[in-house]
Amino acid sequence: MHEKSVNKTVPNKAVHGVAAVTTGPIEGSSKHYLESDSLRIPLRRVTLTTGEHLDLYDTSGPYTDTAATIDLDRGLPRTRDAWERSARDSTQLECARAGVITPEMRYCAVREGVSAELIRSEVARGRAVIPANHRHGELEPMIIGKKFAVKINANIGNSAVTSSVAEEVEKMVWAIRWGADTIMDLSTGKDIHLTREWILRNSPVPVGTVPIYQALEKVNGDPTALTWEIYRDTVIEQCEQGVDYMTVHAGVRIGYIALTANRVTGIVSRGGAIMAAWCMHHRQESFLYTHFDELCEILRRYDVTFSLGDGLRPGSIADANDAAQFAELRTLGELTQIAKAAGVQVMIEGPGHVPMDKIEENVRLEEELCDEAPFYTLGPLATDIAPAYDHITSAIGAAMIARAGTAMLCYVTPKEHLGLPNRDDVKTGVITYKIAAHAADLAKGHPNAQARDDALSKARFEFRWLDQFALSLDPDTAREFHDETLPAEPAKTAHFCSMCGPKFCSMRISADVRQYADLLETEPARTELGFPQVRSVGSPT
Amino acid sequence: MHEKSVNKTVPNKAVHGVAAVTTGPIEGSSKHYLESDSLRIPLRRVTLTTGEHLDLYDTSGPYTDTAATIDLDRGLPRTRDAWERSARDSTQLECARAGVITPEMRYCAVREGVSAELIRSEVARGRAVIPANHRHGELEPMIIGKKFAVKINANIGNSAVTSSVAEEVEKMVWAIRWGADTIMDLSTGKDIHLTREWILRNSPVPVGTVPIYQALEKVNGDPTALTWEIYRDTVIEQCEQGVDYMTVHAGVRIGYIALTANRVTGIVSRGGAIMAAWCMHHRQESFLYTHFDELCEILRRYDVTFSLGDGLRPGSIADANDAAQFAELRTLGELTQIAKAAGVQVMIEGPGHVPMDKIEENVRLEEELCDEAPFYTLGPLATDIAPAYDHITSAIGAAMIARAGTAMLCYVTPKEHLGLPNRDDVKTGVITYKIAAHAADLAKGHPNAQARDDALSKARFEFRWLDQFALSLDPDTAREFHDETLPAEPAKTAHFCSMCGPKFCSMRISADVRQYADLLETEPARTELGFPQVRSVGSPT
Repeated sequence: MHEKSVNKTVPNKAVHGVAAVTTGPIEGSSKHYLESDSLRIPLRRVTLTTGEHLDLYDTSGPYTDTAATIDLDRGLPRTRDAWERSARDSTQLECARAGVITPEMRYCAVREGVSAELIRSEVARGRAVIPANHRHGELEPMIIGKKFAVKINANIGNSAVTSSVAEEVEKMVWAIRWGADTIMDLSTGKDIHLTREWILRNSPVPVGTVPIYQALEKVNGDPTALTWEIYRDTVIEQCEQGVDYMTVHAGVRIGYIALTANRVTGIVSRGGAIMAAWCMHHRQESFLYTHFDELCEILRRYDVTFSLGDGLRPGSIADANDAAQFAELRTLGELTQIAKAAGVQVMIEGPGHVPMDKIEENVRLEEELCDEAPFYTLGPLATDIAPAYDHITSAIGAAMIARAGTAMLCYVTPKEHLGLPNRDDVKTGVITYKIAAHAADLAKGHPNAQARDDALSKARFEFRWLDQFALSLDPDTAREFHDETLPAEPAKTAHFCSMCGPKFCSMRISADVRQYADLLETEPARTELGFPQVRSVGSPT
Repeated sequence: MHEKSVNKTVPNKAVHGVAAVTTGPIEGSSKHYLESDSLRIPLRRVTLTTGEHLDLYDTSGPYTDTAATIDLDRGLPRTRDAWERSARDSTQLECARAGVITPEMRYCAVREGVSAELIRSEVARGRAVIPANHRHGELEPMIIGKKFAVKINANIGNSAVTSSVAEEVEKMVWAIRWGADTIMDLSTGKDIHLTREWILRNSPVPVGTVPIYQALEKVNGDPTALTWEIYRDTVIEQCEQGVDYMTVHAGVRIGYIALTANRVTGIVSRGGAIMAAWCMHHRQESFLYTHFDELCEILRRYDVTFSLGDGLRPGSIADANDAAQFAELRTLGELTQIAKAAGVQVMIEGPGHVPMDKIEENVRLEEELCDEAPFYTLGPLATDIAPAYDHITSAIGAAMIARAGTAMLCYVTPKEHLGLPNRDDVKTGVITYKIAAHAADLAKGHPNAQARDDALSKARFEFRWLDQFALSLDPDTAREFHDETLPAEPAKTAHFCSMCGPKFCSMRISADVRQYADLLETEPARTELGFPQVRSVGSPT
């Protein structure tokens, strides 16, 4: 899609080629903070031309704060390091179970507009997670769970073929600007450690990774050369850096591999394929499965959250909800119990490609088998036939699966299946997934969701174009599209738009209806004689 | 979105500024015809690099046929004029009830891959319509009903502010190229009659209109100056030209107007607002309602299909499924009975803006109140907060409502609420709605739907990039996105893609899985001893 950046950029030469990131507020918004018990929780305030304002959940970090100094070399302030250290030796899950409300929980409660006790009880129940590595001091904590606003993740990361550290850091800043709640760094090429370091030190949102990708680099791309020790050391390296959640494909057991043989698209998950190759070659059960207890111990130490990967997810409509997929899901349920018993937070990854009639079954089964651990799905795409539009094919599935109870949606960009997303694709993916998440929030009756729709629709009805832009998910593009047809500045306050033109306007007539209804109510005697005259709508006055 | 036209254009100077329309086949496809009982039904054949082919439903008309001569001045050949004239004095509905299978029904049967008897019985039941004005000789007939593939409509038309005849004719050709099943000409400015004439004479798909727009032009935009006589004469004028279906907002009764007074967005339908203004001013019941019998007589004569308009549809999430909307729907049910008794085909228009949890109720009520007449909805948009992305907000709702039984979806473009769609927007809207319609066909288990998904996914799995492009809804953009990352021609046959790079590829590993599973099956004795070795995946060979 289109975007127009009207904001300054912050140049930086020291960061291994990081030239600049986008800063400054989103058009029509400004950064505000809520002070609560020594915490300072950010929000985005949209100030309307009526003098009213609407406060929105804000994922964008200090980058949209005109008062903040951005220094990519130094990284964001490690504000969280100064919080009470009570929870530093245990996980959010362990604290929640012990009845302790952590600063992270209080932070999330303010963001969600709910009580800290609800946050605590959902985390204790394992139905929500707060991905927050003790070492990620730059983090602004957030919660993922079906009782809260649906979250979205944006994948970034370079591959062997293309991209640079500079681009990836800017993609992170760019993605959170438009609303990404978490970021996954899926780098597979060179500089994996360095890229991740720069992203973590500058990221106010949780950062997820798939450690097997880096482990594979360490063995020069040959999956059969992987060992538990190489993998374990990679996990520790990433825990030390501050990664908040990790995808682990421990559910790809050797016995399930043959179940994928007659699929249309086999194994499409990279992590799943790596582990399948390893198991086949070594004639052994997956080391992720056999060493899962040890993995739990490591993740517990840092309070890193498991994102149990769906290595056997369907890669096509034909393969949806098949034996391989659900066999793995059953194992993920078993691993969920083990992780939770070890005090580690867990979420469960889901598909993929699923036709609309098979979507709900995924949520129902996940909740049943994995004890309602937060579900985190990739789309799903509702059809295979639209490469270049898979943000849309998947937004349909994503909205539906979120409505059914999925807690976080992994975005899909227009480049899915075709190439690596560039900056424009990242924005299109994020906005599209904000739409899916918000549509689900509305349908689930999330208490704050509809206020924004109502404010925008009211602005639309009253021809307050600037307010309509400011309240929209992408003010820049909304304004640009409007200006294409009616570029003159006065048109933004004109009481008509290009659809009908100045002579006739349906919105205008609706205003007359109100006048008419008022008359019906206040002058019943007169209206019994006949309907009141209303002013002509032919005039734009 | 992006598109790249590699096709020639046909220039034409005589057509009031119509410079050229896009012709030539879609990349990877060619035009074929099925000959059946003296009918010649077009299809689009995708020929694969494997030597196989897949035949697809084709809406694009002669414009994609390299053997056709396009002459916009002369219009398309009036092939249909030569068909049996048995049905020329009656409507498809009357024929169907009399047990007569018309050429139009046989034509639709071949397109849908069903029996002509199923077509006849659904039309007789009023659960499907074949919009086919006797005077639209250029038409390639199609059927709209929930037992058949979900159809999509593209709105075009100039307004007082912008656009020209030339652009609108090209938009029609462009929209059907990408899959629009019908076109609505919603022109509101000057040259309404002429624009429509050029569209009709060159349109192989049914053309719909909203006659009240032209009637309003005749009274210089003042709705209070409208009369039944002016409206009636406009309808006759359009019937004579060959319009196939007409939106008539006869359900906006005077008593319902006050029900909209407390809405967030009042009356957003132009037709609804015009009629409300007229009723309020004249203190009279709508002339469309009081003269409905006479209207039925006129439409019957030409076999023009009613599209009973939802003039009180919700224009925001807040107004969805309210008293005004459903009061009108009840009246549409009453009018449906009257029209069908008069032998006129009917479909029912639906919303609009509806949150996901209120979508199904719309279909359920429509079917109950309107005796399952085909439902034809605008989206609905699942949230209000994404102007510039309303093709996506509405694709979510459209896919869901189609799955629930809606027969045709009216597209929404990225310019919705902001301006008039240009050629790029028309394409984006059409492709997005093909996605929604196809996702619903898949979920409904439409017999032919999944074959295309399977063929594309198989091509994807086997790295047949050219086949993947050819099978996709938009081959040009899919190829363009692929080439952005890997522009070299050899990459299109390379056994890897830019997501993982040449060294590691999950699809490649899946191929090894098949080999492994085969061994498990054919050499059980050997595999009992251990798993077979598979070749290393580190090599791209």
